[in-house]
Amino acid sequence: MGNAAAGPFDDRGSRPHVEGDFAAEEVALANRNPGMPLEALRYEVTPVGLHYLLSHFDIPDLDAGTWRLQVGGRVERPLSIALDDLKRLPARTLRVTMECAGNGRGRMRPRYPSMPWMNEAVGTAEWTGTPLARVLEQAGPLGDAVEVAFLGADRGFDRGVEHDYGRSLALAHATTEDVLLAWAMNGAPLLPQHGYPCRLLVPGWYGMASVKWLARIEVLDRAFDGFQQAVGYHYRRHAGDPGVPVTTQRVRSLMVPPGMPDWYTRERCLDAGPVVLHGRAWAGGGVDVTRVEVGIDGQWHDAQVSEAGRHRYAWRAWRFRWQAQPGRHRLQCRAHAADGSVQPLEAEWNTAGMGNHSVQTVDVTVRAP
Amino acid sequence: MGNAAAGPFDDRGSRPHVEGDFAAEEVALANRNPGMPLEALRYEVTPVGLHYLLSHFDIPDLDAGTWRLQVGGRVERPLSIALDDLKRLPARTLRVTMECAGNGRGRMRPRYPSMPWMNEAVGTAEWTGTPLARVLEQAGPLGDAVEVAFLGADRGFDRGVEHDYGRSLALAHATTEDVLLAWAMNGAPLLPQHGYPCRLLVPGWYGMASVKWLARIEVLDRAFDGFQQAVGYHYRRHAGDPGVPVTTQRVRSLMVPPGMPDWYTRERCLDAGPVVLHGRAWAGGGVDVTRVEVGIDGQWHDAQVSEAGRHRYAWRAWRFRWQAQPGRHRLQCRAHAADGSVQPLEAEWNTAGMGNHSVQTVDVTVRAP
Repeated sequence: MGNAAAGPFDDRGSRPHVEGDFAAEEVALANRNPGMPLEALRYEVTPVGLHYLLSHFDIPDLDAGTWRLQVGGRVERPLSIALDDLKRLPARTLRVTMECAGNGRGRMRPRYPSMPWMNEAVGTAEWTGTPLARVLEQAGPLGDAVEVAFLGADRGFDRGVEHDYGRSLALAHATTEDVLLAWAMNGAPLLPQHGYPCRLLVPGWYGMASVKWLARIEVLDRAFDGFQQAVGYHYRRHAGDPGVPVTTQRVRSLMVPPGMPDWYTRERCLDAGPVVLHGRAWAGGGVDVTRVEVGIDGQWHDAQVSEAGRHRYAWRAWRFRWQAQPGRHRLQCRAHAADGSVQPLEAEWNTAGMGNHSVQTVDVTVRAP
Repeated sequence: MGNAAAGPFDDRGSRPHVEGDFAAEEVALANRNPGMPLEALRYEVTPVGLHYLLSHFDIPDLDAGTWRLQVGGRVERPLSIALDDLKRLPARTLRVTMECAGNGRGRMRPRYPSMPWMNEAVGTAEWTGTPLARVLEQAGPLGDAVEVAFLGADRGFDRGVEHDYGRSLALAHATTEDVLLAWAMNGAPLLPQHGYPCRLLVPGWYGMASVKWLARIEVLDRAFDGFQQAVGYHYRRHAGDPGVPVTTQRVRSLMVPPGMPDWYTRERCLDAGPVVLHGRAWAGGGVDVTRVEVGIDGQWHDAQVSEAGRHRYAWRAWRFRWQAQPGRHRLQCRAHAADGSVQPLEAEWNTAGMGNHSVQTVDVTVRAP
């Protein structure tokens, strides 16, 4: 880790918060980390190339033929597994809505300088892979094992600390049937940018848990102290706050912006008359979305939430019929989850701009027919 | 066009130029218009989802089964062509490096507020389609035909003007064998974001010419006055300058940034010793790249330019062996084309930030072994 001088919860080297305009570094990150254009909410499964992507370092150049997954640490039998061996084990396919923990960071005030997501860091895919549990069974965790760490082949620096991208899960979580070693997305081999040839998939958690370009699995008798686990990805209220680890996705809904956009401002214009507002809603950790409301100029109305094709970890479609009258209108949507959580109107501020699931607002101009 | 009040070369409503930090509107455009991460220069053909994308308006929701291409205007036989009919005509496949005319806009000073590309608005694909010439032959342009206009299914506003995205070509250009009505990319049907079910492909020109989601072709006896042809996409030195239309790509080279990045700044770090610097170079209009130079701290050296698998409209690989010494170094690359053109060290400024093919600069820190 090369991080010996820093305590595990230290966030030294954090960049100062900013307001207003965006730095060239933020724009450069946005140029290489695409969001999902919100009109793509129309697709139940996001088409290839429209799913959001966040790569901390460079996309590694890996060869599936020579790739091996190393499994070591506190296990009875260290393993070195080829992709073909992994594929010979029983596979599962899960439809999963994945979202970046930093989604909405660009809408927080003040803002932490990092990838400046507005609303678009989301996508849904059909992931196929081998349950991690099968591989852990083969390796045989020792009695003192408590965590499992996942290291990627991508390496770089964050706040001065050089490291392989890495994250961990509690052993009890890692051995559930829904955590996959995924080697296919939407029925095809993983694309380089999605973790080829094999990545971890942790349904219901923010995307940082689903380590791409998986290289090593380490079974640990202690908490993993990797940078992205111990320093990054915490909800902290102020510098020095030990904070709360970022885990499952917060309940959220998004709307396809109706009408036509202006190229630059993305302001919307539509014709008066009946309009079907629609979008999708999801909650983390396999919790169900129970209700979606649509706000029209601050008045909230229940939307219809689809019962079609339910998947535990995937978003649900919603729709609302609106009679659009000429003038300026403010459209919003907010979802409720079975655990009682609901989207806030304003972001719950935290130092790194994590988990901003505050409601999306779309301002539209309706013109007379 | 709804643009009657404006002369064809008027750029009224242009946004004021800016310097320094970036507006939220620019960041929102970057969130929905992805660039190609430069490490993907390693691929001769850009993997699906890593090719750059620029959509002026929303991605339309089109159905290949009901889609028809309308061909009208100054023709003997107006046509309405189904996709299957188009696919029954003889097809061609071309490997084409496509680039956005706005690539590099974010590096100009002062800067026009629009999509803030740095270097990444590029990609190479194998496009398959029917030569446009076959369809124009069927329609039979009348004797007074001089231009062919291409209208997309995407509609919105730019500087107050509502329009379908549209561009034109001279009839003599439109009837060459290399201009395609493309319906496949890398051997698969077009993805929604790349123009499904059918787009124009104009090899050697900047991407704005290759109209996506093609809906209508109009043969004209005059110059097309559509907004994106008459107002947008010109090289202008000042407001009121009639300007020069943006057409073919300018000669350009890019380098895979060597070593490891810092997450936020993307500054690079690598170990001292031999390093192979590599990248790709291309020129527009089917012109050949004749030479690529690599700059090391301002000293220029010839790179090796690959002769492998030459394609008239696709980039060529180059490589240069560098003995990296500890310290800070500035790496650059510049390409020369057969027409005598060469990349400038500084951008040639124009009002809309078009065609900035100035050399890429990568600053690296080399550490002792």
